[in-house]
Amino acid sequence: MNQKTNISQIAVVGTGVIGAGWIARCLAHGIQVIATDPAPDAEANLRKSLQQAWPSLEKTGISPGTSPEDLIFETDMAKAVEKADLIQENVPEVLELKHQVLGAISQACRKDAIIASSTSGITPSVLQQGCHCPERLLVAHPFNPVYLLPLVELVAGEKTEPAVLTRAESFYKEIGMKPLIVRREVEGHVADRLMEALWREALHIVNEDIATTEEIDAAIIYGAGLRWAQMGPFLTFHMAGGEAGMRHMLKQFGPALKLPWTKLEAPELTEDLKEKVINGCETHAGNKSVTALAAKRDEFLVEVLQLAEKYWPEPQSIMKK
Amino acid sequence: MNQKTNISQIAVVGTGVIGAGWIARCLAHGIQVIATDPAPDAEANLRKSLQQAWPSLEKTGISPGTSPEDLIFETDMAKAVEKADLIQENVPEVLELKHQVLGAISQACRKDAIIASSTSGITPSVLQQGCHCPERLLVAHPFNPVYLLPLVELVAGEKTEPAVLTRAESFYKEIGMKPLIVRREVEGHVADRLMEALWREALHIVNEDIATTEEIDAAIIYGAGLRWAQMGPFLTFHMAGGEAGMRHMLKQFGPALKLPWTKLEAPELTEDLKEKVINGCETHAGNKSVTALAAKRDEFLVEVLQLAEKYWPEPQSIMKK
Repeated sequence: MNQKTNISQIAVVGTGVIGAGWIARCLAHGIQVIATDPAPDAEANLRKSLQQAWPSLEKTGISPGTSPEDLIFETDMAKAVEKADLIQENVPEVLELKHQVLGAISQACRKDAIIASSTSGITPSVLQQGCHCPERLLVAHPFNPVYLLPLVELVAGEKTEPAVLTRAESFYKEIGMKPLIVRREVEGHVADRLMEALWREALHIVNEDIATTEEIDAAIIYGAGLRWAQMGPFLTFHMAGGEAGMRHMLKQFGPALKLPWTKLEAPELTEDLKEKVINGCETHAGNKSVTALAAKRDEFLVEVLQLAEKYWPEPQSIMKK
Repeated sequence: MNQKTNISQIAVVGTGVIGAGWIARCLAHGIQVIATDPAPDAEANLRKSLQQAWPSLEKTGISPGTSPEDLIFETDMAKAVEKADLIQENVPEVLELKHQVLGAISQACRKDAIIASSTSGITPSVLQQGCHCPERLLVAHPFNPVYLLPLVELVAGEKTEPAVLTRAESFYKEIGMKPLIVRREVEGHVADRLMEALWREALHIVNEDIATTEEIDAAIIYGAGLRWAQMGPFLTFHMAGGEAGMRHMLKQFGPALKLPWTKLEAPELTEDLKEKVINGCETHAGNKSVTALAAKRDEFLVEVLQLAEKYWPEPQSIMKK
């Protein structure tokens, strides 16, 4: 039994890549899991996935006495969810299917259970239209592999009770995650909108024969990718501005937003937007100077470089010496 | 004297953040460097930057007997470049200034010297219009911090001699970099177009109060950022497709390109584009199954997670427990 949230048993509905990832993470943190999926080979595939994930989980640290064998698989969805404190839904991104499954879950589950959808794109208020307990439904969108990556985006819908969001936030922290509460509902939430923008530009670049998919991957991993495990795009650009940080950076590179560098038009750089960006970065940097941030970044990069070199593409790759 | 390229002395014109980064990297690899910059405090700032960069360079491994003291600073640009085998230009991104400086460099330099511009946005053919030896000019665009990040984009202009590109590629490999030869000239080259797309979407998200700058940074570092130091967006999506890879992924998520997930419109997913993307990923993956790739990714993630946790944002941050 979990101390803070009283969430000790969850049900996982849909056991593809994302569902299996949730199950591995939860089992390794000592949460009881009942899984359900209508596919005939679902249980066998799931048990195989758990075996594959477990050695990595063991290296990151798991709760004593836990095992992938602790999983209970139940083909009847209503039975699978009936006692759960939280139900994590991971069915395909088809709205009718989501509504149908969430409707069935909300009829079969306990009256105090939280229903969390892993949807990467649909907003919670839209999901709530198909749910009998919209006040207990929210989006909890994870990233693949779910058992290793800590980010989970939590999005409340119009009808989500604030206490449900708070309790969910505590639960995801307890299973080792970094919940990001998204302030406003928007299709694709935050992280996938950012990735989708990069992905769309990448498709344009391939389409116009400027670079191949492998070259684009190389353009990410040997440059920005190395930095982005420690520092996001805003703090990175804050440092590109020298000691004056983002304030100088926007002055120097702001005009480039008008250039046709990407297929995506930039927003107007109004005073209001400038202040949001500058104040955001300065608050984030706290009392640290750009020099101090750079020293920390460099320490990280030295270590991550040594690590990444072990795992970078094979000798057949275009980029290998 | 370098064995393969005969490049033993370079001149660095413009010693801001990027110029200083080139100098640190080259000195640490035993290349003689003469630096020049018209700002009155340029030499003092540069020597300070080199001192800051050196400990990180020492940890990544430097040529024996090298030191930041090896730098020669010369205020007269014509003198600084006259004996150099390669001149790296890093003046501000203003076309008139670039043309003026490249014109002066090309008059003062040796008749076999390579002139490389660090421009992040301007195409080499446009730069060549202001240069007296366009056949020896190319773009060599690095990433900050230049002394640690290995990516350098090499872009030939209409008049660049193929042998110049080849020699430059060898040189940048010799100073520990991963040159990416960009197939076609385009504003922003490849990596900055990708980053700019993400950055523009991020500005839209801030502008619409969906997330703060710090939340957007968190949405990158705790999710995709952890993966992107080892695997770019294409191979990542290849794995999201399960064993059928990108072929299945485009079938399942291709329709999402039509959704208004970002401000950027996606290209039409034609058969031709699909084949480029699918074949690109399958070639890149070589004979490795998605399961085998996932195992390698997980090994990397376990290690990078342990490393990143040491460097992630301070306790005042929104995301810290």
